[in-house]
Amino acid sequence: MVNQSQDALKNFDPSFLVPGQSIDCVIIGYNEMGLHILVLKWKGMAGWILPGGFIGIGEDMDAAAVRVLEERTGLKLPYLKQFHTFGKVDRGNFNAELVEADMLPGRSSPIIQWLTQRFITTGYLSLVNMKESMPTPDFLTERCLWKPLNDLPDLMFDHRQIVQTAIAEIRNQINYMPVGINLLPEKFTMRELQSLYESILERALERSNFQKKILRLGYLNRHEKKMTGEAHKAPFLYSFDGDKYNQLLGQGLGFL
Amino acid sequence: MVNQSQDALKNFDPSFLVPGQSIDCVIIGYNEMGLHILVLKWKGMAGWILPGGFIGIGEDMDAAAVRVLEERTGLKLPYLKQFHTFGKVDRGNFNAELVEADMLPGRSSPIIQWLTQRFITTGYLSLVNMKESMPTPDFLTERCLWKPLNDLPDLMFDHRQIVQTAIAEIRNQINYMPVGINLLPEKFTMRELQSLYESILERALERSNFQKKILRLGYLNRHEKKMTGEAHKAPFLYSFDGDKYNQLLGQGLGFL
Repeated sequence: MVNQSQDALKNFDPSFLVPGQSIDCVIIGYNEMGLHILVLKWKGMAGWILPGGFIGIGEDMDAAAVRVLEERTGLKLPYLKQFHTFGKVDRGNFNAELVEADMLPGRSSPIIQWLTQRFITTGYLSLVNMKESMPTPDFLTERCLWKPLNDLPDLMFDHRQIVQTAIAEIRNQINYMPVGINLLPEKFTMRELQSLYESILERALERSNFQKKILRLGYLNRHEKKMTGEAHKAPFLYSFDGDKYNQLLGQGLGFL
Repeated sequence: MVNQSQDALKNFDPSFLVPGQSIDCVIIGYNEMGLHILVLKWKGMAGWILPGGFIGIGEDMDAAAVRVLEERTGLKLPYLKQFHTFGKVDRGNFNAELVEADMLPGRSSPIIQWLTQRFITTGYLSLVNMKESMPTPDFLTERCLWKPLNDLPDLMFDHRQIVQTAIAEIRNQINYMPVGINLLPEKFTMRELQSLYESILERALERSNFQKKILRLGYLNRHEKKMTGEAHKAPFLYSFDGDKYNQLLGQGLGFL
């Protein structure tokens, strides 16, 4: 493993990559404990970073994002959504202290030359169900883990700001887009749905008001309870009405 | 004028620019006739394009967008909003037919070499009041005009798609953000506000429903009518409540 990654770094050839442009992925995972962010540690580097990489010279940027995420983490997410491009001159660029690390080749090597240029990076995000999304590190990656949003380790470069921008985008979207089809089991209770919204918004919502507003949007199907002695005590189960859900995804919830 | 622009093209030095990255601005103007887009024609080029340009090697991308727009059109808009980055390999790149144009230097000149590379472009948008935004072309620009959104001329490259993406973003936003503070006079009637929303959404809104929903958001101040004989016939005038408006801009209208 170490040899494979050292070889890859030694043989790094930047002539197939778009210079100065990178991609970073904010993969937001949800479970009953709340929101998590997928972070990784490259071999030989001290700090945590987001899964990221570069664009091939003949590759569309959106396709590069899907490929980069799969290479780093094994996750295949065809619907990564671009959310912002970070173009400050000082993004906390790659610096010499990292080059001292054992695994990286010397400062004049092609990969160090490459990494120390100015990068403008485009952020992509996805919301996934953590239980169905087990990341597996590639040969460049030492570890690849879900970390709680509220207890993130230090992230290198401007990656914390990239995470914050992605979370703000998701919170904004939840107000005008239905979210959740990837985050909940096929059938779920109103309480589970509310808990998802509360995790994303990080605030408590009033139960009856939430239920009234969500049902009025018309994208939930309610299922009949099974007729057993105790069934009347069990909560109703709901599922997403695919057609209505996709229609709302396209046009937003809207207030007008 | 011609000499100045020809000199600028001959003396073009790309070593001060970030390679492969450009900026395009979608400036959406509103008047009583509806939405308009600011387009321009470079001297010696056949087609219409959006105001755009490049990023200096020591310049933040957001600052470059403000500078580029001001250079091309004279408009100083400090609050350009980034909305999307366009990263397809084939964006309808700069091609040889343009080089044939009278004004441009030969194919091996630095500027032609520069223009024919692959560019990833970041789109910025702003909504402005056309009556207060008179564009003035710079020395590279032959004409710079407001064109009706519904009757745009052919645009070069993928610039029509960039406009469509910006309009979709604005229509989406109007459902969760207050818009209008730059687009209306300080005091306006409910009818003028509704007309702005109808222009952006391109559909008629029901009058009493619109008024009820907008007022419920709490960001409009209603002004007393002056006591004259006919005042009761005049419509109420409204203005934006700056504090409440800015608060909603930050957090969105929300449905929860």
